[in-house]
Formats: sequence, structure tokens, C-alpha cells
Amino acid sequence: MDNFIYSIPTTAYFGKGQIKVLGETIKTYGGSKVLLAYGGGSIKKNGIYDAVIEQLDKADLARVELSGIQPNPRIESVEEGIDLFRRNGCDFILAVGGGSTLDACKAIAAGVEFDGPATDLFVNESGLSPIYDAAPLATILTMAGTGSEMDMGAVITVGEDHKKKVVMHPLLNPRFSILDPEYTFSVPEYHSMAGAADILCHLMEQYFTNDVAAKVQDRMNEGVMKVVLEDAVKILANPQDYDARANIMWASSMALAGFQFLLGKPSPTFPLHGMGHELSSMYDMTHGVTLALLTPAWMRHTISAAPEHLPIFARFARNVFDIREEDDAKAAEQGVARLVEFYAAIKMPANLRDAGVREEDLAVIAGKAVENGKLGILASLGKDEVLQILRAAFTG
Amino acid sequence: MDNFIYSIPTTAYFGKGQIKVLGETIKTYGGSKVLLAYGGGSIKKNGIYDAVIEQLDKADLARVELSGIQPNPRIESVEEGIDLFRRNGCDFILAVGGGSTLDACKAIAAGVEFDGPATDLFVNESGLSPIYDAAPLATILTMAGTGSEMDMGAVITVGEDHKKKVVMHPLLNPRFSILDPEYTFSVPEYHSMAGAADILCHLMEQYFTNDVAAKVQDRMNEGVMKVVLEDAVKILANPQDYDARANIMWASSMALAGFQFLLGKPSPTFPLHGMGHELSSMYDMTHGVTLALLTPAWMRHTISAAPEHLPIFARFARNVFDIREEDDAKAAEQGVARLVEFYAAIKMPANLRDAGVREEDLAVIAGKAVENGKLGILASLGKDEVLQILRAAFTG
Repeated sequence: MDNFIYSIPTTAYFGKGQIKVLGETIKTYGGSKVLLAYGGGSIKKNGIYDAVIEQLDKADLARVELSGIQPNPRIESVEEGIDLFRRNGCDFILAVGGGSTLDACKAIAAGVEFDGPATDLFVNESGLSPIYDAAPLATILTMAGTGSEMDMGAVITVGEDHKKKVVMHPLLNPRFSILDPEYTFSVPEYHSMAGAADILCHLMEQYFTNDVAAKVQDRMNEGVMKVVLEDAVKILANPQDYDARANIMWASSMALAGFQFLLGKPSPTFPLHGMGHELSSMYDMTHGVTLALLTPAWMRHTISAAPEHLPIFARFARNVFDIREEDDAKAAEQGVARLVEFYAAIKMPANLRDAGVREEDLAVIAGKAVENGKLGILASLGKDEVLQILRAAFTG
Repeated sequence: MDNFIYSIPTTAYFGKGQIKVLGETIKTYGGSKVLLAYGGGSIKKNGIYDAVIEQLDKADLARVELSGIQPNPRIESVEEGIDLFRRNGCDFILAVGGGSTLDACKAIAAGVEFDGPATDLFVNESGLSPIYDAAPLATILTMAGTGSEMDMGAVITVGEDHKKKVVMHPLLNPRFSILDPEYTFSVPEYHSMAGAADILCHLMEQYFTNDVAAKVQDRMNEGVMKVVLEDAVKILANPQDYDARANIMWASSMALAGFQFLLGKPSPTFPLHGMGHELSSMYDMTHGVTLALLTPAWMRHTISAAPEHLPIFARFARNVFDIREEDDAKAAEQGVARLVEFYAAIKMPANLRDAGVREEDLAVIAGKAVENGKLGILASLGKDEVLQILRAAFTG
């Protein structure tokens, strides 16, 4: 096992009605004037907005609002937020929403203390954003999936070709996150299931790295994967199943809290996210859906291209899907097949074609995916390999 | 699932040579004069003491030493530490050792800022110690087991009858812990295995509570239990197996970090620890050994006394031991039998008699165990029930 540092800076307040701690906890972290950021306004329909305002008012906290943050949030929203925060003398950021709102707010938190354009906030060759300070941030999660509520990263869309770029720094971990499973009751089925696919992918991207005997991390990871597989479908059956919503929400947070399942393991390049982001850029496709579309093809490619890592895929099949097959190759393939069944059960599109991707775009997507270098860890993915995976995922 | 707060205040520096961060990290937390506490002096033989001194000197940190902290640490050591810290104007505590040294240091950290005798530091009816401040504390772990390196609790022995009492407060979480698996290479086999039994018991005490569908927590817990069962025996075969030592050390920390596997579940009374502490008090028996001796008897008693909770024991058997039996009662009993085999494999004594307990003491032990109230959560344990468990554990 490699050396590592385990640090979980975010406190989570989990459960029904936890919003009651909002005002006092913001004050604990020195907040007095809050930039309140949210998305398209669904929180005004489902009552969450009113609940937030009530708590802020009760604690005598002033606020400025930034609304309209879009899915796949753009740098322009970040710039608007930075400007609002500075002009109004805010000292705290409260993100209310899903991963997109949270990610935009992390970039805003970095930007308000940054002497330079927001486009310089992205990670450099050190793997971190070049920042030395950030505004304190808290989140109220309304959609489970991205894990942004418990990690230090954000993905921001830039430019006319919708390039996705990463902002990442330990200073950007939320001070606290309020996780009320009831807030996710009204999330539409499609987005709930895309969130589950996203969680599962975060777990898999940390699982499928070179085997370094980091067994505690991998075994805990397998446990969380099992829960996602079991409970996502319960939400399909009953969107108001509190325990299922709670388990999926907590799975989202555990999947990325301190990247705890990656500790002591070689850092992967998150190849599925790398490829998926290009699909989202070109088609504005929901993030989690792109991951579900690509994962089986990526697994089969890796098993074939790097057979020395077959035991990891066989272990996945046995420990996550309880497959009893003794032959590694057969077990691994059965694992992929079961994963495909899961994606079908949660109503993900069967292949890229069904999802509206044009075959003639695949080569362009592959090129963009490796623009900043090869992807992959178990098997290195250049443009040719990514194109193979995309073609396999095109027909499913 | 119940509401909960997830908070992990301790940063862990895990791996070979991590002691290199010691000096600078102490300074980060405001330390300039360190109370350096350790046990019987084994760290002077295995080189850890010299490595610590080198790092403190390099960072120009002054120090005062408190040595000779005994297993099952006594309140007198705590009082001595408080006095040393105050007289010398220390501002930071560094505990180097296993759970006993760490626990004593937590009580010292509480005591130096406390206006009253150390004997008033124990938890009151609120479940926490009555403190409002504490000295900053770091730990360097030399023996895996108690999880004290990542939690907020300490067990201190008091009085002529060696009563074990608890100090517990969020202020007592270490600021950071240095976890170098190589530091545990020289731990004698008996204590290494007792540590593994202690870890497993921490996991089980969090697992065996009323089923509230906290599946992420339970599934992660099962994963860690599996690792303990698999890797403890590897240490028996090769005490210098780095990966096995690393996995057991990380299992120790994960088992109690923020009591993460208990979040959202009803709080148990830690009945195995409650009974085990009385055995340690009377016979100065190693903590982990007492737990191994009592657990199978406690499980069988609970299955019999609270059959409505049988499915939890059957789930444990299936998910942790991969038992395929479909009948719950049979599966549960097979799980207990496999656990008994594990304790035998790690060379724990087979029963209380073999461990030197006198049959005529059992009733006294039972009485003391319930002095502060009944134990247990799935099945309530009064004196009679504890005595039944002790009698069953006596013959094994």
C-alpha cells in the first residue's frame, strides 16, 4: 500500500430537518453576509428555498442571491458569482442544489480570493488549482450523485466547445453539508437514476486501479457499491422511500469523502469521467448517463487490453455481484453483464446511438478526450483506444 | 435511518516514514513545548523514540517526558501528566504508543484545562465529559487495536478495585495521528492478535444494533471485518508482512473514525466492552483477549434471548463469512462457529477458565458489569443475563 493522508474536512449534518442547524453553523464559520446560490428555481417549488430563507432570517444573516446556475455549469456563472460576492461584501457562500450548483460555488469560493481571471483557476501540473485562500462554503444537497458535497473538486464548462475543466484544492472542501434525504424526494426519476450511475462510477474509478493490497479501502468500496445496486431500484419503485433515498445520498457522500477509497492506491486518471465529459460537452448530456453508457465498453476493453489485471475485474464480479464462477475470465464477463442489467433496470439508454450520439462524431470525441494526455490506468487509453470504446458503446 | 452528524476531526498520516511531518505539523497546531508521553520503554529499544526526538529537535520543539504509562492506564498517570504539563508550561501533547498511552494522554489533554480533580473528568449523564477546552493532542501509534488514534474516547482505571471509567469529548480527538505500519512489526504476537480481536469487536459492537436500514454503514463495516479476519492470520505467519500490518492498522482507525459505522443507528451500550472491562479490572487481562473470550457467548445468548434479531446475525454470517445457508438460525450459528475458529486461529484462549478466571468470581464480575445500569441493545443484559454469558464463556 502506498503512503497517504486521510483528511475529511467537511462535517455532514444528515437526516430529516437538519436544516435547523444552518444559521448557527454558518455563524460558527464566521459568516454574516451569505451569497446564496441555486439553480433553475426548483427549490422555490418544493419548499426548500423558503426553508433556507427562514433559517437565514432567524439567524439574522444577510444574503445576496445568485440564481440560474445551469447543469454542466459554465465559467460565466462563476464569474457572475465572484462579482456578486465582491460587490456586496459577502463573507460566506451557501450552495443549494445538486452537483452543478455546488461545483459552480466551489469555483466562486476559489475565485473571490484569487487575483486573476476565473479561467486561471483550473488545476495546473501540480494537480491542484493555484490558490492560497478561499471563501468558506457550505452546501445543502438536493440531488445525490456527484459527491461534490464532501470533496474538494469542481467541474466547470468553458468556451464555445463546452470544454470541461477541473478546479480542485483542499481549501474548497465545504465547511459543512446538510444532507436531508427528503429533499431528494422530488428529483425526477431520470436524474435520480443518473445520480446513482454517477455514484457507482465514482466508486468504480477508485476501485479499478493497480492492485496494491489496499484491502480496507476496496472492501468498504465494494460495500457501498452493493448498496447503490440494491437501493437505486427501490427509488424507481417508490421515489419517497426514505431509507433508499438516505442510503443513496450517503453512498454519494462516502464515495468521495476525502477520496477515501483511493487512499494508498495509484491515482487513476478517471478515464470514464474523461470520456463522459466530452459527451456532455457535445450533446449537453446528463453526466451520470454518459458514465453508464461508457462503463461496460471500458471494462471489456480493459479486460482485453490488460489481461494481467483480469483478477481485479473477477474480484469485482464476485464481491459486488456475488458471482460464484471460479474462472476469472468468465466471472469478469458475468460481472460486466450484471452491470449492464443494472443500467437497464435503472432505465439508462442502452447505447450511445439510443442516447442521440451521432456515429460521425465519435472520432472527434475521442480526439478531445485525450487532448490533455492519455487516459486510463490499468490500460493506457490513447485516441485509438478511446475510439474503440466509443464504437463498442455506440451499439451497446 | 436516524439523523446523525458525521465529523472526522483527526488527520491521519499513514505509511512508511510519515514521522517526517511530525515537527512541522505540531507547529501548525500551535505547539512549541511538547509533553511527550509513552509507555514502558519499548520505543527506546525499537528506535521509535530516537526518531521522534530527531524530528522534535529538527523543528526546535522543546519537550518534557512522561514515561511509564501502564497497560490499562491509571488515573494516577493522568494526574502526573497534568501536573507535568502545567508545571512546565507545555502547550501540546504527543502520545507515542498503543491505546493505553493514547487514552491516558486524552485524559491529560482534558485535565490540563479543567478546574477540578481528574476524577471529575469522566462522562456524566450527557454521555460526555464535562469539559469546555482541551490541550491539542497528536498520536504516533505503535500498536493497532483500540482505535484511540481516531476517536474521542479514553478508558481510565480508577481506585483499588481497578474500575474502568470513560473520558469522552469531541475536543479530545487527536489533531493528527501518524500511522506507520512498520512501527508495529515488533509488537509481540499475543498483543498483535489481541489488537485484531479488539478491532473486530469495535466493528461488531457497531454492527449488532437494531436494524434501521443504515446499509452503507453496515456494508462498509462488513468489508472491514472481512479484512481483519483475512489479514490478522497473515501477521501470525509473518510479523513483518507490511501490507497485512497496514491493513490491520487502517482497519483499527476506520473502525472508530467518527464512530462512522454507528451513524444513523441506535447507540449501543457496548456490552462486550462493558463485560470485558470487568475482566481486565480483576485479572489485569489484555483488553482484546477479554473481548474474544466473551463474544461467542454473547452472540449465542442474544440470538436465543432476542430471536426477533436473528436476521442480523444471519446477515453477519452470510456477508462476513460467506456462509450460504438459507435458514437464518443455522446460518447464524455457523457464523458464531466460524468466529470461534478465527479466535482459535489467532491463538486466543479457548475459554475464561483457560484464561485464568476463577469460577467463583463470575457472580462478582457480573454484578460489577451492570453497576451503572443494564448492558446490551438487542437483548437487555441485567446481572442474571451477564452471569449466564460468563458461565457459557467459562467453559467456551
